[in-house]
Amino acid sequence: MTASSIDDRLKALSITLPSPAAPAANYVPFVISGNQLIISGQLPTENGAMVASGRLGDGVSLEDGQKAARACAINLIAQANAALGGDLSRIVRVVKLNGFVASTPDFTDQHLVINAASNLFGDVFGDAGKHARAAVGMASLPLNAAVEIDAIMEIAL
Amino acid sequence: MTASSIDDRLKALSITLPSPAAPAANYVPFVISGNQLIISGQLPTENGAMVASGRLGDGVSLEDGQKAARACAINLIAQANAALGGDLSRIVRVVKLNGFVASTPDFTDQHLVINAASNLFGDVFGDAGKHARAAVGMASLPLNAAVEIDAIMEIAL
Amino acid sequence: MTASSIDDRLKALSITLPSPAAPAANYVPFVISGNQLIISGQLPTENGAMVASGRLGDGVSLEDGQKAARACAINLIAQANAALGGDLSRIVRVVKLNGFVASTPDFTDQHLVINAASNLFGDVFGDAGKHARAAVGMASLPLNAAVEIDAIMEIAL
Repeated sequence: MTASSIDDRLKALSITLPSPAAPAANYVPFVISGNQLIISGQLPTENGAMVASGRLGDGVSLEDGQKAARACAINLIAQANAALGGDLSRIVRVVKLNGFVASTPDFTDQHLVINAASNLFGDVFGDAGKHARAAVGMASLPLNAAVEIDAIMEIAL
Repeated sequence: MTASSIDDRLKALSITLPSPAAPAANYVPFVISGNQLIISGQLPTENGAMVASGRLGDGVSLEDGQKAARACAINLIAQANAALGGDLSRIVRVVKLNGFVASTPDFTDQHLVINAASNLFGDVFGDAGKHARAAVGMASLPLNAAVEIDAIMEIAL
Repeated sequence: MTASSIDDRLKALSITLPSPAAPAANYVPFVISGNQLIISGQLPTENGAMVASGRLGDGVSLEDGQKAARACAINLIAQANAALGGDLSRIVRVVKLNGFVASTPDFTDQHLVINAASNLFGDVFGDAGKHARAAVGMASLPLNAAVEIDAIMEIAL
């Protein structure tokens, strides 16, 4: 997909990429190793605020969880954009997403939560956005986030 | 190991590879990137039914957890088989397994659960089946599965 | 960074690398695939004893969790040392850490726990130690460990 067609899709989805979160101490938001771009776990922040706090099954609805997963995906794309010098067309393939969903023991729809992120990658990148993934339920997440997602992407050098 | 010797081992273990689960929406069961085969988290289904539901430490015994882990491993091999056009001898090395075990806070034998998957990879692939791994305890898993396992394999192109 | 400068940093930090844990059955402590070194999840053991047992938010303090994360990091470096024939200068880049923190539902400082591991990698390897990471809260971990961390490193062949 060309850079302009990706930009067009982001616009059509009304997505403005945020400034990616700055490096925090001795870890960094992304590492490029060979033709892999490895992106740190992203929290569901939007304009500096958490989109959904707490656990699915305990106050966070499926719909709110999906909004959170979508926000994580947007933050992953923002990090990729920073890593690739603003040229998202260098993404050859989104290889893997790990979707971590803060969950009560009886919440078992983690796959439906993470679908919101998977769908966004499909919507933005087409076939190149179709990835392998794992979706799992966590006891809790940093800063009381409802969802955290990390990613591996194959890139053109 | 040759394709026929892998087939022989599967037969000796009375394992018939299932039809792998079909792609679900915008994520896929596996991605090949360079010489890596990345397989999505597999649930412990057998003939369409969940082998073990619920959490270890709360109704799911260690033995049932191990049966579930073995079922996840068989499903991973079935996905690899589909990815590699039916030629499992193209697996150069099983590189990494992530073993996710739905657990109560006081269940701490996740390693024993995941051993059942690790052992199967050793039984089927020999030295090529010896992998790095992580085994961890989850609050819950999709569809109330007791175990979920994903994998990275190095393949011959 | 040269081998001797890494050794100097370890000494300055009063770190003596332990003998790495031996292979356990059909999984192994590390796999080298191409120029990636993939290290199995390490528990926070020191001289054979667990540095911190139980969950953050329930008897394990943040400080104890950080000691545990540091112990995991030292064990990761010990495994890397074994994998690389004692030449840690072959580490081109620490690519990714996954930090698993046994947590109660209301403990939400997993990032602060794992910082202790991230900082150690920065202290020992400098810029090459700056990695992508995920930090997440688990229901429980093997052998009641408070923390488990696995790693991917890019190495010089």
